Amino acid sequence: MLEERIRHAALRSRVMLADEAQRYIQNGMNVGVSGFTKCGDVKAIPKALARRAQRSGEAFKINLFTGASLGEAESILAKANLIDRRMPYQGDPTLRAGINKGDVRYVDQHLSHMAEWVRGGILDIDIAVIEATAITENGGIVPTTSVGNSATFVQRARQVIVELNLSVPTSFEGLHDIYLPKDRPYRSWIPIQTVSDRIGTPYIPCDPEKIVAIVVNDEPDSDSKIQSADGDTQRMAEYILEFFDWEVRQGRLPDNLLPLQSGVGSVSNAVLSGLKRSRFENLNIYTEVMQDAVFELFEAGKVNYASASSFALSEKMSRHVLSSIDSYRDKMVLRPQEISNHPEVVRRLGVIAMNTALEVDLYGNVNSTHVTGSKMMNGIGGSGDFARNAALTIFVTKSVAKDGRISSVVPFVSHVDHTEHDVDVLVTEQGIADLRGLAPRERARMIIEKLVHPDYKDALLDYYTRAARRGGHTPHLMEEALSWHARLEQVGDMRKTRGLVRVQ
Amino acid sequence: MLEERIRHAALRSRVMLADEAQRYIQNGMNVGVSGFTKCGDVKAIPKALARRAQRSGEAFKINLFTGASLGEAESILAKANLIDRRMPYQGDPTLRAGINKGDVRYVDQHLSHMAEWVRGGILDIDIAVIEATAITENGGIVPTTSVGNSATFVQRARQVIVELNLSVPTSFEGLHDIYLPKDRPYRSWIPIQTVSDRIGTPYIPCDPEKIVAIVVNDEPDSDSKIQSADGDTQRMAEYILEFFDWEVRQGRLPDNLLPLQSGVGSVSNAVLSGLKRSRFENLNIYTEVMQDAVFELFEAGKVNYASASSFALSEKMSRHVLSSIDSYRDKMVLRPQEISNHPEVVRRLGVIAMNTALEVDLYGNVNSTHVTGSKMMNGIGGSGDFARNAALTIFVTKSVAKDGRISSVVPFVSHVDHTEHDVDVLVTEQGIADLRGLAPRERARMIIEKLVHPDYKDALLDYYTRAARRGGHTPHLMEEALSWHARLEQVGDMRKTRGLVRVQ
Repeated sequence: MLEERIRHAALRSRVMLADEAQRYIQNGMNVGVSGFTKCGDVKAIPKALARRAQRSGEAFKINLFTGASLGEAESILAKANLIDRRMPYQGDPTLRAGINKGDVRYVDQHLSHMAEWVRGGILDIDIAVIEATAITENGGIVPTTSVGNSATFVQRARQVIVELNLSVPTSFEGLHDIYLPKDRPYRSWIPIQTVSDRIGTPYIPCDPEKIVAIVVNDEPDSDSKIQSADGDTQRMAEYILEFFDWEVRQGRLPDNLLPLQSGVGSVSNAVLSGLKRSRFENLNIYTEVMQDAVFELFEAGKVNYASASSFALSEKMSRHVLSSIDSYRDKMVLRPQEISNHPEVVRRLGVIAMNTALEVDLYGNVNSTHVTGSKMMNGIGGSGDFARNAALTIFVTKSVAKDGRISSVVPFVSHVDHTEHDVDVLVTEQGIADLRGLAPRERARMIIEKLVHPDYKDALLDYYTRAARRGGHTPHLMEEALSWHARLEQVGDMRKTRGLVRVQ
Repeated sequence: MLEERIRHAALRSRVMLADEAQRYIQNGMNVGVSGFTKCGDVKAIPKALARRAQRSGEAFKINLFTGASLGEAESILAKANLIDRRMPYQGDPTLRAGINKGDVRYVDQHLSHMAEWVRGGILDIDIAVIEATAITENGGIVPTTSVGNSATFVQRARQVIVELNLSVPTSFEGLHDIYLPKDRPYRSWIPIQTVSDRIGTPYIPCDPEKIVAIVVNDEPDSDSKIQSADGDTQRMAEYILEFFDWEVRQGRLPDNLLPLQSGVGSVSNAVLSGLKRSRFENLNIYTEVMQDAVFELFEAGKVNYASASSFALSEKMSRHVLSSIDSYRDKMVLRPQEISNHPEVVRRLGVIAMNTALEVDLYGNVNSTHVTGSKMMNGIGGSGDFARNAALTIFVTKSVAKDGRISSVVPFVSHVDHTEHDVDVLVTEQGIADLRGLAPRERARMIIEKLVHPDYKDALLDYYTRAARRGGHTPHLMEEALSWHARLEQVGDMRKTRGLVRVQ
């Protein structure tokens, strides 16, 4: 069994228990691990680190760098209080609490950018811990259900620990396409012209001498729970599908659309599900994460090819995909996140980007990350990589949250992740607003008309009208722009938008 | 004379006066004109349009699309009240007033993006008006001192008017490199690997049938006035040069740095001037605009090659460059702004981007465009194209403005053009802050320590301390975040930051 999985004979002697292997990780180290939206993450070493902390009482912390969010591993490390610095994305409740207390130094960064920092020497990786399907004859590491930043970590780390996961079938080999841009100034173009282009190797090249330990494991990925579509998400999906139809009829999109990207979330999932029943065919996917809906589209015969950096599947779909991966091999590819999200490729292909907003404002600025300006939810993830470079950038959000106490359409977003310059279309369950080519005052009127919940329409119109009277290209009232958020913090409901707020 | 300039014989019959040619422009048309930072802009047709409005009293307006800012033409059209919609950048006082009153519908957009909207059918161009050095045998249009969006306008417009400018020497032919990406999904990579790569034609391809009029003119470009460096800008330039030196010694930049981009402004100019006296050699420039300092660097033998979309020169330097263009021909190229600013190329080359901020905040967000959130200054220009994709993104600003009444470092910027995710280094005359890899609370402490003017240090530290106590990843006090701006509007001085502001 291990001979099939570890084809470089000399490396078989480096198989050891996780409790031994974790000793290579020292206090203060920069540790780069595999894992993206809970897929292909390392599992045994984080547990061993937590055991070490518990047993020895040793005070040690690591700086944890990943592809994106980890599964159970993140929670284990966070609960054991082992994370000092964290980058570039997370989604764990315990870690989030630490981040918002200021205990964990979290750097929320575009997913396509971190590899540049590592390659450019801004960020040194001491040790990489990578989940693998197999190790090739030449020491190459075959990833599992995600690629993320693993190739860059392996390239730059001084040492590598491999977690060989026996629960992933060996037939995963061949699914991945590992390509890393060269250092500047010697870099060339990324030769991807269609989503299916393969430009690299099916494994992560690795000097076998760097592999200091191999840990064998058979734990499956944590499953991804996606809220099922409700009436609102269904309606939003329908607006988007009607909009696609309109754009095709205007000659602005080809019949099979352009390659689709969709962030993790129930609306994106509903759009993809809606496509199953649509007239659109021969679709292509160029995204960072393949959710269940992508495989449902495959089943429905709607998709030609899908490119991503990771899966994010329910337990049921995961079992299906793992057992039938052979039938998908020539229909999909998993790439490093630097490539799946690369501005060069995203702009060239003309991706249609669909992502979820936390809140949007009168002029089309989008907040994807912060609750009332201060509290981090998860992170920007790849939304900026795609939004900034896509042919068509769509953000979706329900018009209200928390039983109506929060309006997702506000005068001024409390944090900006995507600026007015980068947002084309906004969608709520109230309607859809195509903002392209509109001046700010036109955008404001359209957003109030189409997107705002009835409970907040008068208040937002009132704000805009008074601001516009005062003048300006993008009319605002500085003393009031963030008052909806201040009110929410003070009385727990944005609907009470009038009154006095004490400002120091 | 005209035979040399109009080499397509049949087109010579289309030479006419501007007053005749302007009749092709009708009320409500989308007019795409040449011009970028006051260079290579159309000059005769705007004047003729203004004469028509004055003479006939006819109420007509056009939608004006350009490369970037125009020279005198912009002012003439604005004063005659002939502009309805305007995109993607401007810098004229009369037009600015119209924009801020809401009379002109201005769409402030990344300079590399507009061509995609035109190509993608989001924005139809009815007629293009392009300044030219010459027309080739096959109808190709040789631009003058800028390329901007001219090639895309010509490609998509139904009709083209050429303004032949005899003040530009015929030896300008060969300076330009015109390359346009194909429509999706047939697009390939942009094959630029070094700043000097030429990948297109030296003229804008044009079906001669589309050229409905040729107007002959000999008016020179308006000159660019750049404030000369004072002690503060000089100091900022020195910080940046020291930083470059440090990065080279850390092995993070090559000895000759990476290709430099600098926005128009006195600090960028001072940095380039500082490079004249530095140890750096064999520099390359990949930017949108070549200011005087680029030519001074050439004279000093410091620059190998410069790529841009336009000049922006003082009258004196303009005369020098126009008279000695032959000696620069193999050292520089003018490209379409879609290419000079293209994310694909900017990221591949690893450009060092230096641009000016209007204000920055505690966490590194940058406002480049709006005064107290509402009033447009000029526009985002290419700063986002470069900032978002550069290897190193630097923003500079003096720490205070208006004799100290305004702090350029504020709790919360009143408009976000560049998010915290996209800003690496900030510089004021107080110091330099390298924010890469830092969590928001670390950034805040560094920004307060290094960048803030002493008059505002205590107030900003006080804001941050109280916010951090309340908690959050990016600590803010929603009721107070924009109070510095509100105070400025109310009493004209941000130093009076305490007191009550009535919030409705």
